[in-house]
Amino acid sequence: MSKANFGVVGMAVMGKNLALNIESRGFTVAIFNRTSSKTEDVIKEHSDKNFVPTYSIEEFVASLEKPRRIMLMVQAGKATDATIQSLLPHLDKGDVLIDGGNTHFPDTIRRNQELDASGINFIGTGVSGGEKGALEGPSIMPGGQKEAYDLIAPVFEQIAAKAEDGTPCVTYIGPNGAGHYVKMVHNGIEYGDMQLIAESYDLLHRVLGLSVEEIAEIFADWNKGELDSYLIEITADILTRKDDLSEQWIVESILDTAGNKGTGKWTSQSALDLGVPLPLITESVFARFISAYKDERVKASKVLSGPEAKFEGNVEELVEKIRQALYFSKIMSYAQGFAQMKAASAEENWDLPFGEIAKIWRSGCIIRARFLQKITDAYEKNADLDNLLLDDYFKDITLNYQQAVRDVVTLAVNAGIPVPTFSSALAYFDSYRSEVLPANIIQAQRDYFGAHTYERTDREGIYHYSWYDEA
Amino acid sequence: MSKANFGVVGMAVMGKNLALNIESRGFTVAIFNRTSSKTEDVIKEHSDKNFVPTYSIEEFVASLEKPRRIMLMVQAGKATDATIQSLLPHLDKGDVLIDGGNTHFPDTIRRNQELDASGINFIGTGVSGGEKGALEGPSIMPGGQKEAYDLIAPVFEQIAAKAEDGTPCVTYIGPNGAGHYVKMVHNGIEYGDMQLIAESYDLLHRVLGLSVEEIAEIFADWNKGELDSYLIEITADILTRKDDLSEQWIVESILDTAGNKGTGKWTSQSALDLGVPLPLITESVFARFISAYKDERVKASKVLSGPEAKFEGNVEELVEKIRQALYFSKIMSYAQGFAQMKAASAEENWDLPFGEIAKIWRSGCIIRARFLQKITDAYEKNADLDNLLLDDYFKDITLNYQQAVRDVVTLAVNAGIPVPTFSSALAYFDSYRSEVLPANIIQAQRDYFGAHTYERTDREGIYHYSWYDEA
Repeated sequence: MSKANFGVVGMAVMGKNLALNIESRGFTVAIFNRTSSKTEDVIKEHSDKNFVPTYSIEEFVASLEKPRRIMLMVQAGKATDATIQSLLPHLDKGDVLIDGGNTHFPDTIRRNQELDASGINFIGTGVSGGEKGALEGPSIMPGGQKEAYDLIAPVFEQIAAKAEDGTPCVTYIGPNGAGHYVKMVHNGIEYGDMQLIAESYDLLHRVLGLSVEEIAEIFADWNKGELDSYLIEITADILTRKDDLSEQWIVESILDTAGNKGTGKWTSQSALDLGVPLPLITESVFARFISAYKDERVKASKVLSGPEAKFEGNVEELVEKIRQALYFSKIMSYAQGFAQMKAASAEENWDLPFGEIAKIWRSGCIIRARFLQKITDAYEKNADLDNLLLDDYFKDITLNYQQAVRDVVTLAVNAGIPVPTFSSALAYFDSYRSEVLPANIIQAQRDYFGAHTYERTDREGIYHYSWYDEA
Repeated sequence: MSKANFGVVGMAVMGKNLALNIESRGFTVAIFNRTSSKTEDVIKEHSDKNFVPTYSIEEFVASLEKPRRIMLMVQAGKATDATIQSLLPHLDKGDVLIDGGNTHFPDTIRRNQELDASGINFIGTGVSGGEKGALEGPSIMPGGQKEAYDLIAPVFEQIAAKAEDGTPCVTYIGPNGAGHYVKMVHNGIEYGDMQLIAESYDLLHRVLGLSVEEIAEIFADWNKGELDSYLIEITADILTRKDDLSEQWIVESILDTAGNKGTGKWTSQSALDLGVPLPLITESVFARFISAYKDERVKASKVLSGPEAKFEGNVEELVEKIRQALYFSKIMSYAQGFAQMKAASAEENWDLPFGEIAKIWRSGCIIRARFLQKITDAYEKNADLDNLLLDDYFKDITLNYQQAVRDVVTLAVNAGIPVPTFSSALAYFDSYRSEVLPANIIQAQRDYFGAHTYERTDREGIYHYSWYDEA
């Protein structure tokens, strides 16, 4: 009896769709789910596929050709550990376990080390693109042993999304937790992109007073230019949708409290650990938190009045300024996210391939966008680039667009419309390009109350001032 | 032979100063240090004090009256665990160990639980005020068993700073990690206050072109009004100090790269875990990180040009606006910090006494300030206050001062001067008072690409839109 080429554990929608995607590329796929009925359902629904249904871990492992390639699509956390433990006694040295869940990278580092000691390869991989991506071609970010990656690459290159130039959206990210780390930052960037779009919408809606239809057209128009991206595209689409229940635009019936699954939070927490400034993504996480305080906001809106949002200038000009502000701020966000990955790479000895990462995000994933090519170009010119803002393309955009951001933030600030990420983007830009910041005041204060010492501008060494002697 | 009333382990400057403070209130203090020479030095230097020098853990423990009260002033982390382990075999049930270091609260929760199982009381306490405060009277934030607090209160009430009305700046904060948690938030707030002062200085310096002397006078003047606080006071003092080496103002010789000891970072990370928006403190942490990128900033300053910072209006008016912006933003920061403590209190069942916390910060600690009385007043009026912005005093200030913040942010944004915390304060205010935020767009996007569902404005329940069916 011939063996299956690949195994998938976990037949929830992501696992099922990935299994279907793999099978569609000519592979025989063994499938397993803790609750057998789910496996039966998949087989019933897809009886024409080369699936090998299995109903015990032993049967599942035995059905696979060696070295085994097993993808876990189970809940991150305890379920993943439990699944690994149940598989472990049946595996052989050189087999490859792949965790395709949204796992926090320290768990992946730990599992990779533990399994490596038993001779089992462990790949932690980001899979972005949602249910549809899993089925039709996601962007895949695998980290773990390089030799294990080489064993799964023939499958992953087939199932991954393809960029416009035909390149599969998958590459070897680096050792142990590198793949899940990069997926985490991807998600953080996604939070930032979404909040920037929301603030743009708010300005178009509340300041310019445009209708949902008009705003839909604006986003559709933006999607034809340098902002061309999946999130802009679906925003334009969303704004054309009517609601069956209210017969209004669906966005007008959706409650303004944004949820989150924690990956944005992880990104910010990691940046804080690394000492990397990540204000834009972090403001976007906090913006979701504030949105969840709906009851308090309603109460506050009755007592905390502000200026009236009114605009009397040229509408088209302002729409263009908002577009420029959005692109400018997006660049700040990616500059921060890539600087964070650079710091993480140094900290963990991952040797992350920044240009390749931008490349595999060009298609399949939620943040796919035309402008990612510009990031790849920047790292191809200079693999050691400290910050995207120092690359010529991005430098020129920021120089050309900064006045628009200043105008848009000024408008929002005076209209009482919150623009936490737009204003944070500008503060980052103006901080980053400041040869001198007022942090000398902070160092003086720290030395004053805590004898924390300071460095000097004019000579080497560590100094302490005798504040109390001379007072 | 009579026993010592209190023991202190760790004779670095904070431990030594606390021991001196305790002794000065009429207590006999046993002291111990792992390296004996430090203990000898203290005894030599302070031969007239009621100190009992001890040179082994056994001798130290044996020298104390029961129930023993032992304060650990050693490095947070492994050193604290090692010290506890070395003491443990010699302690009796009912003894009280007190950790006075800057310990991360999860460690305190763990230690409190572990020791409680052996019948040993464990207090984790924040001690703020730096070296000088430790000696002359710090603000003290103890958490742990209430009965253990009652045993140490007679000492702590003596050594604590006294507020203007004579009340000692110490109170029982709550169980296990509550004291260290509140100290952590205190430090986070300190980061915010310092960054706000730094941004104010930067505007006065770079936009108004005022001299260090003139700015010193402005801070001294501000310190006479509602901004009256230790940090404003020492900033005014700092700006009057000359440097022996350069014979210039010392601030002009201090390098603009701010360090940090991690407590600000912890505060932000905890807020992220709790789902509480804490943008101002977090921006101030990131501002320190950006300041540390000195080399990159110097490089960036050569290529990323911005507007010229020039101001041609009325100087006095702008100085007053900056003062109002500073006070307004400080209120936003404390509103966020207290909201975070409220969420932590609910999460950990701490029942934190918010009004008392503001009260014990009125003196001794780094963030001591006249306006803390207003926070106490607000919680005395309403112990369940959701957010300080909903209290009448703070509401009125924000309404009266918001135009000044809008003007100052507008000025900074157009002058190219980074004001991350001023603009973040305003974004928080405008978000918090927004009945409707554009988070409906984010929820629509999440439902579109990830089937994450949404709630509705017009009826109960969880909904999913069939985005792909109708596309």
